[in-house]
Amino acid sequence: MKRYEQLADDIARSIQEGMLRPGDRLPSVRQTSTSRGVSPSTVFEAYYLLEARGVITARPRSGYFVALGSQRLQALPAPTSTTHSQPQELDVSELVFEVLEATRARKSIPFGSAFPSPLLFPMARLARHIASTVQQMDPWRTVEDLGPGDQELRRHIALRYRIDGIQVPVDEIVITNGAMEALNLCLAAVTRPGDTVLIESPTFYAALQCIERSGLKAVEVPSHPVTGIDLDCFEEAIEKHRPQACWLMTNFQNPQGSLMPVAHKQRLVQLVTRHQIPLIEDDVYGELYFGEKRPPPAKAFDTEGWVMHCASFSKCLAPGYRVGWTAPGRFAKQLERLKLTTSLATSVPAQQALASYLGKGGYDRHLRQLRHTLMLQQMQYLEAIQRYFPEGTRITRPEGGYFFWIKLPDDTDALALHRSALENGISVAPGPIFSAHRGFKNYLRLNYGHPYTQEVEAAIKKLALMVG
Amino acid sequence: MKRYEQLADDIARSIQEGMLRPGDRLPSVRQTSTSRGVSPSTVFEAYYLLEARGVITARPRSGYFVALGSQRLQALPAPTSTTHSQPQELDVSELVFEVLEATRARKSIPFGSAFPSPLLFPMARLARHIASTVQQMDPWRTVEDLGPGDQELRRHIALRYRIDGIQVPVDEIVITNGAMEALNLCLAAVTRPGDTVLIESPTFYAALQCIERSGLKAVEVPSHPVTGIDLDCFEEAIEKHRPQACWLMTNFQNPQGSLMPVAHKQRLVQLVTRHQIPLIEDDVYGELYFGEKRPPPAKAFDTEGWVMHCASFSKCLAPGYRVGWTAPGRFAKQLERLKLTTSLATSVPAQQALASYLGKGGYDRHLRQLRHTLMLQQMQYLEAIQRYFPEGTRITRPEGGYFFWIKLPDDTDALALHRSALENGISVAPGPIFSAHRGFKNYLRLNYGHPYTQEVEAAIKKLALMVG
Repeated sequence: MKRYEQLADDIARSIQEGMLRPGDRLPSVRQTSTSRGVSPSTVFEAYYLLEARGVITARPRSGYFVALGSQRLQALPAPTSTTHSQPQELDVSELVFEVLEATRARKSIPFGSAFPSPLLFPMARLARHIASTVQQMDPWRTVEDLGPGDQELRRHIALRYRIDGIQVPVDEIVITNGAMEALNLCLAAVTRPGDTVLIESPTFYAALQCIERSGLKAVEVPSHPVTGIDLDCFEEAIEKHRPQACWLMTNFQNPQGSLMPVAHKQRLVQLVTRHQIPLIEDDVYGELYFGEKRPPPAKAFDTEGWVMHCASFSKCLAPGYRVGWTAPGRFAKQLERLKLTTSLATSVPAQQALASYLGKGGYDRHLRQLRHTLMLQQMQYLEAIQRYFPEGTRITRPEGGYFFWIKLPDDTDALALHRSALENGISVAPGPIFSAHRGFKNYLRLNYGHPYTQEVEAAIKKLALMVG
Repeated sequence: MKRYEQLADDIARSIQEGMLRPGDRLPSVRQTSTSRGVSPSTVFEAYYLLEARGVITARPRSGYFVALGSQRLQALPAPTSTTHSQPQELDVSELVFEVLEATRARKSIPFGSAFPSPLLFPMARLARHIASTVQQMDPWRTVEDLGPGDQELRRHIALRYRIDGIQVPVDEIVITNGAMEALNLCLAAVTRPGDTVLIESPTFYAALQCIERSGLKAVEVPSHPVTGIDLDCFEEAIEKHRPQACWLMTNFQNPQGSLMPVAHKQRLVQLVTRHQIPLIEDDVYGELYFGEKRPPPAKAFDTEGWVMHCASFSKCLAPGYRVGWTAPGRFAKQLERLKLTTSLATSVPAQQALASYLGKGGYDRHLRQLRHTLMLQQMQYLEAIQRYFPEGTRITRPEGGYFFWIKLPDDTDALALHRSALENGISVAPGPIFSAHRGFKNYLRLNYGHPYTQEVEAAIKKLALMVG
């Protein structure tokens, strides 16, 4: 642990223990530097980290304060169940569609949205790249690189893996129409109808829909709101049900925001390798970390090729371009072929624009800014939720991404809340759409990926009143 | 029948009957105008039509001549079988991939390609549209119109249906990643693994691959090289096997180039309507007609919504953009939902560019030019094939598209020919990849969508020598 992290932890502890209370002013950077015997820049980094975590807030020209209400609502508890579900055919897709269609049907405050604000992305810059690449495009490129995708884009993606310390050969990468297609192709490559797939509980509703549509059975494994899937239970489920695949989000899971610790990821990869079970790893939020560096995907620990890593540019760079990819390990050839017979190829202008953008630099600068924005928005939203939501509400504070997972008081019906919120111009994503058995009846996923405005604050207040 | 068509038929008959022989000079336009008592423009149109059909050729400053060799090779015979196959699980995908991968592995004369030359498309013009639309793009468009696609593009497509006399509401149209995704989604919407699908024989290899991958059984129905699927046999197969879907190409079928007459299409729609069997209609070549107007798809005669019409811009306007669509009749809602869970949406910049291009006009002008080019290339290729290929070769002369279907002498092994041609830098598409039972052993599909050059002529000559 670095010195500034130690300092941040010390300060956080003194807040937890009540020595500092919400609204208290922290000592100035100079005072703390002197009293602790560390450099001012160490203090600054510690304060910045605490601010990132929503523990303290900066007020212009006044200094740092313990965040208001940061203590009022508790974090989510560990899952009560430690057993996995029995393999079951799913029947939740219709409910998911009903909720999503109602949500899309009207203009509303988009707490239920799956997307961050499109205004957070360098759309104008990307536009210049697409304009210049498409005008210089060699027409033959439209019939080359079918299936696996644009060679230059794949090279840039491989390079980014390498920078993160992961060895992925260019030839392993298959460009897809967003991560959604990548995930579907991976699932199709390794399963047949009637097979069993292990998933987290709660899990992203689109995964449930894909599994249902493919005629597969799901086994749900409880997942901790901070550390992700329960690996003991996962191992039991593997041994008992011999699934043909598992499908997990290791980084900033949707909806919980959980981040699997590195040791968990290592064990996860050991387990799937030993049992020879393909791991479909959905890592679309991995770049949206608030910590110091990108949390590695499970793919980073995969030496035998059992991890099928899926990601995209849709959530971190180019929404609407529909460019994602998979690095599917030992299944690369199957994936390339499946891509050919599923949609032949991915839009060439979009691929070339991204390859050009990645080649010119600027992506990391954009990502830093995006992360910082999302982190600040998390603090702003959280403060309002802490202030307005009733006692008994519990909330995650994810270290990345743009979703809160909120447990409402026990008697709350999230589906009813979803309907009455919509009538008031507010969308939410109710818990039952994230579960094969329609559980999480008093849970919500709430999107903080849109700028915090007075309207947003009013909507949070209104929503809190509807909760009770 | 118009006057010039009558005249053209008269002249064609006198060639068939031997009154005019290959290489003979035709009377001048003025002479014919006088002798037949019709206007010079009627004669000109008749000659033009005959030229389009490859019956005569124009030589600069010399007039019109009966095409050389136009009589030497016979047209393909009707299929010998009039019975459909038994439902069978497919096992041809691996062979298709082997052939396609070998073909792509080296630079070669692309007779085996599925694409016309990318140089035939207005890539620069499209580039200007993509550049200007993407620079004015409202970022919110990236999260709106998910699933069904860009509203403006769908409006233009609905308008084009209307111009062709087909009523398709905008809401029925779902934009997809090319026709390939449209076809796959339609198949997924109406079948479950183990179901039976009726297909033509021969049929497009990608259809075979989709069916195999989806765990479906196929019943092959013989198809005539000129008029398409044998409808008596089709009806028998429906009654006997109660298939859950059929998948046909009604216009310029790949690989045969057959064009179903209007009366056939009407009967086809009556049959599927009476039996309530969804017809997945692959119409990607419909715009590439050499006749006077676009041949209607079966969709034009569908009043009950059983036809799922699939098409794209890939073969007629914008290769590589990967923008296709389906108008799936009564299955529109299922399709929209399937699209959401399969790939969420289609690339927004590509969709907007096409909407803008279609809005500005110029598409019909481009199509006229494209059709004319393909028609001329057909004549040029055909003349060379007629000249060089051995006796016993039989060949289609499709009224649109860019494929010849060639029956080689009986003892020819098309797969062996494919391999030895590749060694000589020539790709071909061998018959067995177009058949569930690996039939058509002495057939080839030959692409004439690339400009006719000395290299092409030399390759045709070389290929002919390899045949024997």
